[in-house]
Amino acid sequence: MAGNSFGQIFKVTTFGESHGVAIGCVIDGVPPLLELSLEDIQKDLDRRKPGQSEVTTARKEGDVVEILSGVFEGKTTGTPIALLIRNADQRSADYSEIKDIFRPGHADFTYTQKYGIRDYRGGGRSSGRETAARVAAGAVAKKILLAQNIQVTAYTLAIGGIYAETIDKSVIEKNIVRAPDLEKAEDMIKLITAAKEAGDSVGGIIEAVVDNCPAGLGDPVFDKLEASLSHALLSIGAVKGIEFGIGFMAATMKGSESNDEIVLDQGTPRTKNNFSGGITGGISTGEPIVFRLAVKPTSSISKKQMAANAEGTLSQIEIKGRHDPCLTPRIVPVVEAMTALVLADALLIQKTLK
Amino acid sequence: MAGNSFGQIFKVTTFGESHGVAIGCVIDGVPPLLELSLEDIQKDLDRRKPGQSEVTTARKEGDVVEILSGVFEGKTTGTPIALLIRNADQRSADYSEIKDIFRPGHADFTYTQKYGIRDYRGGGRSSGRETAARVAAGAVAKKILLAQNIQVTAYTLAIGGIYAETIDKSVIEKNIVRAPDLEKAEDMIKLITAAKEAGDSVGGIIEAVVDNCPAGLGDPVFDKLEASLSHALLSIGAVKGIEFGIGFMAATMKGSESNDEIVLDQGTPRTKNNFSGGITGGISTGEPIVFRLAVKPTSSISKKQMAANAEGTLSQIEIKGRHDPCLTPRIVPVVEAMTALVLADALLIQKTLK
Amino acid sequence: MAGNSFGQIFKVTTFGESHGVAIGCVIDGVPPLLELSLEDIQKDLDRRKPGQSEVTTARKEGDVVEILSGVFEGKTTGTPIALLIRNADQRSADYSEIKDIFRPGHADFTYTQKYGIRDYRGGGRSSGRETAARVAAGAVAKKILLAQNIQVTAYTLAIGGIYAETIDKSVIEKNIVRAPDLEKAEDMIKLITAAKEAGDSVGGIIEAVVDNCPAGLGDPVFDKLEASLSHALLSIGAVKGIEFGIGFMAATMKGSESNDEIVLDQGTPRTKNNFSGGITGGISTGEPIVFRLAVKPTSSISKKQMAANAEGTLSQIEIKGRHDPCLTPRIVPVVEAMTALVLADALLIQKTLK
Amino acid sequence: MAGNSFGQIFKVTTFGESHGVAIGCVIDGVPPLLELSLEDIQKDLDRRKPGQSEVTTARKEGDVVEILSGVFEGKTTGTPIALLIRNADQRSADYSEIKDIFRPGHADFTYTQKYGIRDYRGGGRSSGRETAARVAAGAVAKKILLAQNIQVTAYTLAIGGIYAETIDKSVIEKNIVRAPDLEKAEDMIKLITAAKEAGDSVGGIIEAVVDNCPAGLGDPVFDKLEASLSHALLSIGAVKGIEFGIGFMAATMKGSESNDEIVLDQGTPRTKNNFSGGITGGISTGEPIVFRLAVKPTSSISKKQMAANAEGTLSQIEIKGRHDPCLTPRIVPVVEAMTALVLADALLIQKTLK
Repeated sequence: MAGNSFGQIFKVTTFGESHGVAIGCVIDGVPPLLELSLEDIQKDLDRRKPGQSEVTTARKEGDVVEILSGVFEGKTTGTPIALLIRNADQRSADYSEIKDIFRPGHADFTYTQKYGIRDYRGGGRSSGRETAARVAAGAVAKKILLAQNIQVTAYTLAIGGIYAETIDKSVIEKNIVRAPDLEKAEDMIKLITAAKEAGDSVGGIIEAVVDNCPAGLGDPVFDKLEASLSHALLSIGAVKGIEFGIGFMAATMKGSESNDEIVLDQGTPRTKNNFSGGITGGISTGEPIVFRLAVKPTSSISKKQMAANAEGTLSQIEIKGRHDPCLTPRIVPVVEAMTALVLADALLIQKTLK
Repeated sequence: MAGNSFGQIFKVTTFGESHGVAIGCVIDGVPPLLELSLEDIQKDLDRRKPGQSEVTTARKEGDVVEILSGVFEGKTTGTPIALLIRNADQRSADYSEIKDIFRPGHADFTYTQKYGIRDYRGGGRSSGRETAARVAAGAVAKKILLAQNIQVTAYTLAIGGIYAETIDKSVIEKNIVRAPDLEKAEDMIKLITAAKEAGDSVGGIIEAVVDNCPAGLGDPVFDKLEASLSHALLSIGAVKGIEFGIGFMAATMKGSESNDEIVLDQGTPRTKNNFSGGITGGISTGEPIVFRLAVKPTSSISKKQMAANAEGTLSQIEIKGRHDPCLTPRIVPVVEAMTALVLADALLIQKTLK
Repeated sequence: MAGNSFGQIFKVTTFGESHGVAIGCVIDGVPPLLELSLEDIQKDLDRRKPGQSEVTTARKEGDVVEILSGVFEGKTTGTPIALLIRNADQRSADYSEIKDIFRPGHADFTYTQKYGIRDYRGGGRSSGRETAARVAAGAVAKKILLAQNIQVTAYTLAIGGIYAETIDKSVIEKNIVRAPDLEKAEDMIKLITAAKEAGDSVGGIIEAVVDNCPAGLGDPVFDKLEASLSHALLSIGAVKGIEFGIGFMAATMKGSESNDEIVLDQGTPRTKNNFSGGITGGISTGEPIVFRLAVKPTSSISKKQMAANAEGTLSQIEIKGRHDPCLTPRIVPVVEAMTALVLADALLIQKTLK
Repeated sequence: MAGNSFGQIFKVTTFGESHGVAIGCVIDGVPPLLELSLEDIQKDLDRRKPGQSEVTTARKEGDVVEILSGVFEGKTTGTPIALLIRNADQRSADYSEIKDIFRPGHADFTYTQKYGIRDYRGGGRSSGRETAARVAAGAVAKKILLAQNIQVTAYTLAIGGIYAETIDKSVIEKNIVRAPDLEKAEDMIKLITAAKEAGDSVGGIIEAVVDNCPAGLGDPVFDKLEASLSHALLSIGAVKGIEFGIGFMAATMKGSESNDEIVLDQGTPRTKNNFSGGITGGISTGEPIVFRLAVKPTSSISKKQMAANAEGTLSQIEIKGRHDPCLTPRIVPVVEAMTALVLADALLIQKTLK
């Protein structure tokens, strides 16, 4: 209800503020007897953690995860898995200056309107830091998916207008922007570095592909797979749009073009182009699920901006601290995590039909 | 769980198949003492019903709604409101031909994969007909919103690449494509008519604006207002993408551009351009909420297409019957309904914080 | 949220008032390919309907059910099953007299306090009439249980202090009080008849037994099987208490007595006495599930009673109309229905663990 | 779904095993600006903790709680409150002996049936230890109730057949069995001590009273206040029955007796005897809410008992370790906590109607 839980059977509840004691999550509904180690989780957390490269914030946070419950002798027991990540960096000092200021693009104003109280330490609950708990939970979801060979891969399709031109999944983790095209990655890095030097930030596009997803996942009407995925992905702070398959291009197409031609693939009918992005009528078709997300530039920039306070006074601020000049590379693992949460849940829900 | 309910406090459950006995919904959580009449509901149903103009299907369906419960002496009582719409058109004959065929772009294949059984009469539950129940429920949600002067308006922003160039809300219901620009509406109508004559269909873009939405609605983390709205809107069959405010344009902007300048409006700080689409940190800012949806062309076209059956045999089909050459105009009231469901729910949830 | 839905996967939403247009329910989450006919449902409705014998109200209501959706060619399709029962008796005349009176034992006062509005026609939503929708939904749940040979049987264990002394399930439907002891049934009938003649009513105890329930159903901590069953059963208006297995007797036992002795039954360890009522640690043991319910006497009696109105004036009332002198026999099928809803849901939930 | 969450708006999710790293909970939906300190929570935990007196287990566990999130500068912020209690006693040694044994009265067998894996360390998740997390969450719920002067009080009404004869709430915390009658408390203590010396255990009855509960709480049909409370209370491991107001006595009463006489109390109509236990039609009447619970004797006794293992071999076991000879006194704060959870949730839900 209050927005901190996600999923129906595979259900995650997260907690914690940016500069509080700790963040973490409780995952309920994980089937028993699944092998699960700390490393399974830490691996993805390391892909999201700050300070990992020159295109991310210089702030260092180890993001060391602890499993508090739900795993016994290396296996899940069917009871809730609680994961805890202590915050290394709890200094509130950096933030005293912005205590009474509503920063542009941040949730300072809206949280104050909603709750009548604001934890001003680094954004508190509204900080992107909460996504570490999502990534931890997503790592558990991925274990369920991998047991059925379902693979979720996200990557940076574009940064500030520079698009990857080839999609080579094997290079994604070999460049710091997580692009599937090493050559274009170089250009993207240059663009981010220039923005960083100018005290500015840039946006991008993330594409995600789910391979080997069986047909039949998702529910009709309100919980179509596009609906659940959109809910999951648009809950990531910086994401401002989503499109599946041909997406917005569909608006300019004719039905005779957008209806995908059926071809026979070793006797099995398949679509020629997967225009629908692997989902028809809200239910997976068995083709790869494909969608793209618009990621806005980081709101925290050191360039001077006009901000306001509760009294309605405007003033110029320069946001100090160490911020990501581009969020896209660090959001890639968050996108994978949220996608995995939706699909693990859909897989478990599907079992109730048999 | 099975996808036929939506909302947390203001909760709608819909039922019914395209060519079954009836469709309808049960709305739970409606506050008592709200004035509600049949006309309040019928009015929006008439905007969605088939056969209303030359750019929609020629199929006629009265869509007459009956209130079965929850209203006493013209007022809601706080108990569930059940709404029923009998299907006038239950002939199954038209569909016997496609009984064993998986139509391109339709849910025939995925439903069979999911359930192992398919109600082949006009798409059954996967038919867009179920949206009539959403519109009925949305009409009740709108009553809650209007009591606080919150107005939800959707309109056709573009059809097949032809964009409205002015946004005049007063003309939306005065043209059959529901565009906010009478002149461009003419061009859109021509485009649809041409597609219809060619046995084809066209896609479009719908924009929705929520005026007078108070600040503070939406929940952080997983139930951000963009997340809930995306869930709601991407659950409409033909919608393939959504973007809020600057949306996908954000991907090519700098932070110094996309961070909206703060200006003083009679002493109150506001954003100059509402780039965020009225939502920051997942919570409404008090500015108009703005988003756009990609609507794909109708999948049912009379042009010949390749289709497959369960045995993996390909064959050419021509889909008979009377179909919408463009879904966009009839989806406009569905978009309003789904938006109203989300906001009415958010308004009620917000009360639990006080 | 507003209390009109029950269940997690097998989920029922009911609607309708005693003297409104209709009552009914929508059942979501029913697996596809289950054979389901009108007769399956009508059969149980007939066991609950008014006017069935001399110990029930003389009011006649056919309670004819209609299946609106979710069943195609005699089989469930996995989509929501909507069931409708039109109210034959919509006369409001009988109730004008009590319009401003809060009847003792009824929800008139509390509904007014809760909602600020009261549908005074026969209790509206607070009438026991809503249980017909539960029985209809329960009949569908029973089909799922019977497919696995799980049998739910409820019966009248006692009426006004007269207890059944033998438990012969084969005679339950052969006497109008639904007792498992034909001889004692005669005494019970006499007691009820005497109360009826005196314008009074009597209470009773219902016992329910679930045979062939597999071990492993129910969830730990908050959704223990006793918890879910208690929720289900205590939601029946006239039920004021529940106990499982040895129940309240446990309060006077020693651990060495209440811990059930383990015996070998053809090599399989079983409990000798099933003191726990078939549930340990909140999870079914495989032994019969056994519980008992306290049913209060009908609140509507024709004897004179003191009642109050909103102005705080006391007055003597005689409740007219045709009321059940004892609710117990008609609640028996409601108890079965609610038990079946819990177990069908638990069965489906259990599938998500595998 | 998997049973580790409770509540709709005020929602608690608990985690942790008896001998794992830690137990704890996440509470979502707590309104902002509520004053909350560690002491508020620790106080109730101390009433539940082991080793507090001679009638409880001798095992010592500090149960020191840590607030991880959701509280800023002494006030709740509206974001999730995570509470953590590290387990002091993680030794698994004591339990190796029972690793393969299904102890009578315990969940060993049913957990193995359900999950195919069992955390045998002290019962794991099935241990009563999880109730510490409930008590912590309940302490937060009580703060919400106390802000409206709603008081929840539970006490030991009876131990092994010895009943309190006076109800003096001021003495409850002044005797180690938490009885409201100091004289009878002495007898109860003697009975428990005798059982303890005999290596046995005893059961009891807990009564709970909610004072100053406003009229109008609870929801009709499935979420009647009795239903929600029963769900909450029967989810406590050792509880085997519940009754409200006159409870099982209703089964032997006439309607003219059980219908409570209406009297005028300073011009306001009230019931003379509160037979209904403060709830009519599932909704609070404004009178004190009253219910009683049957608590079974501790299953862990040191007397010899027959137990079985997975291979179906019977053997005599003596359960070692330090166990409570009577659970009732330590369950009293758990009963208060669960009651507080239900009422805090009902209070918040009621706000959505206005």
